[in-house]
Amino acid sequence: MRPRLAVTMGDPGGVGPELAVAVLRSGAARAAADWVAVGSREALAGAGWTPGLCPLVDVGPCGPIRRRPTPEGGRASFAAVRAALDLCARGRVHGMVTGPISKEAWALGGVPYPDHTELLRERTSSPRATMMLAAGRLKAVLVTRHMPLARAPRALTARAVVETAELTAASLRDGLGIARPRLALCALNPHAGEGGLLGDEEERVLRPALALLRRRGADVAGPIPADTAWAEHAAGRFDALLALYHDQALIPLKLADRFGVVNWTIGAPLVRTSPGHGTAFDVAGRGRADASATIAAALWAARVARR
Amino acid sequence: MRPRLAVTMGDPGGVGPELAVAVLRSGAARAAADWVAVGSREALAGAGWTPGLCPLVDVGPCGPIRRRPTPEGGRASFAAVRAALDLCARGRVHGMVTGPISKEAWALGGVPYPDHTELLRERTSSPRATMMLAAGRLKAVLVTRHMPLARAPRALTARAVVETAELTAASLRDGLGIARPRLALCALNPHAGEGGLLGDEEERVLRPALALLRRRGADVAGPIPADTAWAEHAAGRFDALLALYHDQALIPLKLADRFGVVNWTIGAPLVRTSPGHGTAFDVAGRGRADASATIAAALWAARVARR
Repeated sequence: MRPRLAVTMGDPGGVGPELAVAVLRSGAARAAADWVAVGSREALAGAGWTPGLCPLVDVGPCGPIRRRPTPEGGRASFAAVRAALDLCARGRVHGMVTGPISKEAWALGGVPYPDHTELLRERTSSPRATMMLAAGRLKAVLVTRHMPLARAPRALTARAVVETAELTAASLRDGLGIARPRLALCALNPHAGEGGLLGDEEERVLRPALALLRRRGADVAGPIPADTAWAEHAAGRFDALLALYHDQALIPLKLADRFGVVNWTIGAPLVRTSPGHGTAFDVAGRGRADASATIAAALWAARVARR
Repeated sequence: MRPRLAVTMGDPGGVGPELAVAVLRSGAARAAADWVAVGSREALAGAGWTPGLCPLVDVGPCGPIRRRPTPEGGRASFAAVRAALDLCARGRVHGMVTGPISKEAWALGGVPYPDHTELLRERTSSPRATMMLAAGRLKAVLVTRHMPLARAPRALTARAVVETAELTAASLRDGLGIARPRLALCALNPHAGEGGLLGDEEERVLRPALALLRRRGADVAGPIPADTAWAEHAAGRFDALLALYHDQALIPLKLADRFGVVNWTIGAPLVRTSPGHGTAFDVAGRGRADASATIAAALWAARVARR
């Protein structure tokens, strides 16, 4: 089956429109799927879209292009994501690649969601939908996300570990065709707590979660000291890591491929990927944006949609 | 000046003796310095040392070789470090490369220090001596070290940041000849706290420390979100990073070069380096130990000793 995918423009003042056009012009992305551009015609045409490239779902004007968060830009980028979700819901496309939006612009524009994930959770009734982050074959899913580091140890629960692990395994199986995913759970503390000397979350939270997961048949190693876990993941020992806090995943992923990190939404009944970076207002509109993450996201979406 | 350096055997049951012999046989290490082996003759000879390779300072028997922590092994590895410190103190060598010891063996053997660094701090009256960790050109110094992650945010003080930064800058200048070291301070929280939404340590602790450092003339960027800081460090923008907790440095360093991390003691009046890994009892004695970190540590010590 040849997938049909939407690519949204993201914030019209950011790098999103030029990244969408880069996907539409990419030989690999064109070979992998048929594309529909979704956004403001003026923003996408300004970045190089032409009717010859692909059909366009125009969400209307986005106001003058400003290289910063604006209410009009927020509303237009929100309208594009909503339109792409509608295309998914109506079966017109098999999935979507979303360009970077500005959370600040969404707030300025009165959009009632903080970001893509929350919108998607509500619109698809998938309260546990989350992101898998990937740089090449390095993949990770976060157990805790955007919070102060001091709060992460307390926010860590066995239930969150179990749910994240099962969601991750199911997504690797169903989305990527990995029959028996090999996962590893990162430890929270240095040296995995060194027998309790350097922290007790490994014994108190992580080991009980692992025991339950194994009883249910999951292949999850750990808790492994996080520095060892990433080195072993890079050596190919695991299909994905469960990382306990934001930087435990983002430091190694961005070190491995700074401009190539892909986000893949898992746990929702639709295919959605996006580049792992933001709007980059400071770079936008000069033809200097690095499209590698967006093209990787496009190929990823095509791969998952084909299944 | 051609430096003369000691290499200690580390724990006799671990990979230390064979790593010491690998240094003594390494063409690069032999070209960079004259060497003295320090340890139990039986352990070093068992790993391949011969009188033709270099002089030996024999610290006496270490008991039968066991591939685990033993009191005899702890006492012998401690005796080797002490003997190397004496050689440094008496000006017989310009510095030392230490093989991995077992902290557990030191405790079993009644050694009154937990590790190399504490011994060195006391013997050289350098209470602030600490480690720079390096993998290739990636370098980092920790502001907090071995403690539960939950404790690190509270343990972080502006004073510790300032002292660590100044020690780091001085060591890069005096030890490696970098005239004006460019440092960066990692943020503690995701997105550097995102203006306080994701944590306040950046505003409360890190920015005041940076303001003081800059008034004193240091070149320290930050606080930079840690994922960005490491990616920029890898791109060559900084000479070293100041990392706030153990895994913030060890995850990226081991990902960059799992078996090549070098520790360099800074803030002490002698030259000491070591491989960043442990005794690896499970690998020892089979000729399979990866000596790249120890040889890198040897070349590093020679480079610093030449200055």
